[in-house]
Amino acid sequence: MITLEVDLGERSYPIHIGAGLLDRADLLAPHVRGRHAVIVTNETVGPLYAARVEATLTGLGKIVRTVTLPDGESFKHWQTLNLIFDALLGAGADRKTTLIALGGGVVGDMTGFAAACYMRGVPFVQMPTTLLAQVDSSVGGKTGINHPLGKNMIGAFHQPQAVIADIGTLKTLPPRELAAGLAEVIKHGAIADADYFAWIEQHIGALNACDADMLALAVQRSCEIKAAVVAADEREGGIRATLNFGHTFGHAIEAGMGYGEWLHGEAVGCGMVMAADLSLRLGFIDIETRSRIERLVAAAMLPVVAPDLGVDRYIELMKVDKKAEAGQIKFILLRKLGEALITSVPDADLRATLQHAVLKRPVEAPVA
Amino acid sequence: MITLEVDLGERSYPIHIGAGLLDRADLLAPHVRGRHAVIVTNETVGPLYAARVEATLTGLGKIVRTVTLPDGESFKHWQTLNLIFDALLGAGADRKTTLIALGGGVVGDMTGFAAACYMRGVPFVQMPTTLLAQVDSSVGGKTGINHPLGKNMIGAFHQPQAVIADIGTLKTLPPRELAAGLAEVIKHGAIADADYFAWIEQHIGALNACDADMLALAVQRSCEIKAAVVAADEREGGIRATLNFGHTFGHAIEAGMGYGEWLHGEAVGCGMVMAADLSLRLGFIDIETRSRIERLVAAAMLPVVAPDLGVDRYIELMKVDKKAEAGQIKFILLRKLGEALITSVPDADLRATLQHAVLKRPVEAPVA
Repeated sequence: MITLEVDLGERSYPIHIGAGLLDRADLLAPHVRGRHAVIVTNETVGPLYAARVEATLTGLGKIVRTVTLPDGESFKHWQTLNLIFDALLGAGADRKTTLIALGGGVVGDMTGFAAACYMRGVPFVQMPTTLLAQVDSSVGGKTGINHPLGKNMIGAFHQPQAVIADIGTLKTLPPRELAAGLAEVIKHGAIADADYFAWIEQHIGALNACDADMLALAVQRSCEIKAAVVAADEREGGIRATLNFGHTFGHAIEAGMGYGEWLHGEAVGCGMVMAADLSLRLGFIDIETRSRIERLVAAAMLPVVAPDLGVDRYIELMKVDKKAEAGQIKFILLRKLGEALITSVPDADLRATLQHAVLKRPVEAPVA
Repeated sequence: MITLEVDLGERSYPIHIGAGLLDRADLLAPHVRGRHAVIVTNETVGPLYAARVEATLTGLGKIVRTVTLPDGESFKHWQTLNLIFDALLGAGADRKTTLIALGGGVVGDMTGFAAACYMRGVPFVQMPTTLLAQVDSSVGGKTGINHPLGKNMIGAFHQPQAVIADIGTLKTLPPRELAAGLAEVIKHGAIADADYFAWIEQHIGALNACDADMLALAVQRSCEIKAAVVAADEREGGIRATLNFGHTFGHAIEAGMGYGEWLHGEAVGCGMVMAADLSLRLGFIDIETRSRIERLVAAAMLPVVAPDLGVDRYIELMKVDKKAEAGQIKFILLRKLGEALITSVPDADLRATLQHAVLKRPVEAPVA
């Protein structure tokens, strides 16, 4: 097991990464202080892992309840969130109750938001079970739900007490979910560390094959990058926005197709290809850098051709992005591989990228 | 106009109190920074005052929208909150949009919670138009909505940019709402300032008659007390809980009768009589102090006899109070007039108070 730290002063917390951590009472004990703990999971992850976490908590003398939500982005809304509140109030959960998010990004975002709002704030622990959640969404305290008009539009910054990433859970991850997580791995390389990007290119075959050692290294390096960015800019006043590389396009795809149709990571994968194309059109990166990104996204079994929603519809959807100001959309682009910037862009270049993105074209052979 | 300050470091903000403040662009200007401002009001207050605030904001060059909610505690739930989110997203409101809460406590609590959650947090300004909101709920950053199983169970701490209390709006306040506000005024005297309590006793006739000068003095003194308590304990780790004097019983009345049946202030008024009775039974205060509280609550035209929900139902309802820990209810009682304490109580005394509270008994003559 390795342990990283997210350095946020009095809101600092550890990220533990390793195999078999669901059973480690010593890791949970310092972070579950009240008598009650409530595990929030979903109908896919619960049957696989909830009993183990229940046993760990019961061993600590806690009174444990488990709330099982329906699975998927299409349920990331108020009605599902209310299932958590109903369970907490029904169980007599008090202000010292700790929530445990056991699942992927949707479970983590919703559990964190429920913890932020229940009695105006109770503690919670992230136990991510998907690659996407382990490398990205469980770290940093962004929580929330979707609104029909925009993704993650309703939420809070609420940091967890700890992140406990049991990489053993990745063994049961469906290939599509694994690929979705690799999108965020690729993102971290692209925006922050060109050497890491090259390492991912080199090992994409092993990562696709769910090689435990390689995945552990990817979770570690991605968490290091994420933790450093969050520590520098907790509330996204500046550099944290670069973690949205690929997300402005991606959110438009998710909302435009209907939440759950594309996985978040799939939309981000395709969105990064679009953002790389826009970076090229604005003269920031060269064509080889754009190609490396497109090849790596394709090699990770992620889509590189965008759904044809129509250029105007894309622009309409992107205008409700949280980074937009006074109707002007802000994009995260690459200045070079390993370095991002945030900028508005000329309408003509944006439209050219959107037109190009929906064209099926031969992707060069994967790198590995 | 007088101006107080809530001292919370970088979250400090002014409270302006005076007549005609709805029209004062100079007060709003420093606190509405983006291009968009969204006024949230209700169907009672909106027709009276929204046009004036719209004109003030338009004069500052802002793009203004007004969202009108249904009026009353029974609408303080998620569906109504969603009307605010729908309007914000429909209007293309960005992360720099300022919300303006124009109304009473329900409007303030819901607008503040919407501001806390919209895009993970946007600024808001409180423009309270009821006595209850001006003396209490608009100050301190407690925001939230009700859940069928408990009052204010879902919410956030989110401080406003400013509180602008136009006491001219109190002229249109229905007598029942005026009385409800006086409950919180009496509360501030009871828990923090025996001299203020005596002043209220002396001037209750003028306050009931909506005397502008007397109301202005009450708003000022109550805001001073509230601001000092909030500055000392923003997140209610200790002394802030004393502001809940009368509220544990009061919340049970509100929930037990159905939200909106009793006004919040009416329930708090009756709840203070019950808390005073419990303080007497535990030997903290003498019978004369209990009588003074009961007489003043009655003189403010507030109920002093509790609805007969049954002792067990009262206890069940109070167990979901946010102050409860491990199923044990915590009460705010009086150590003496002007000084409160927080404590659990023996079951027998609590039951005696609950039995006594529902008995109709002659109230001694009002003090004024």
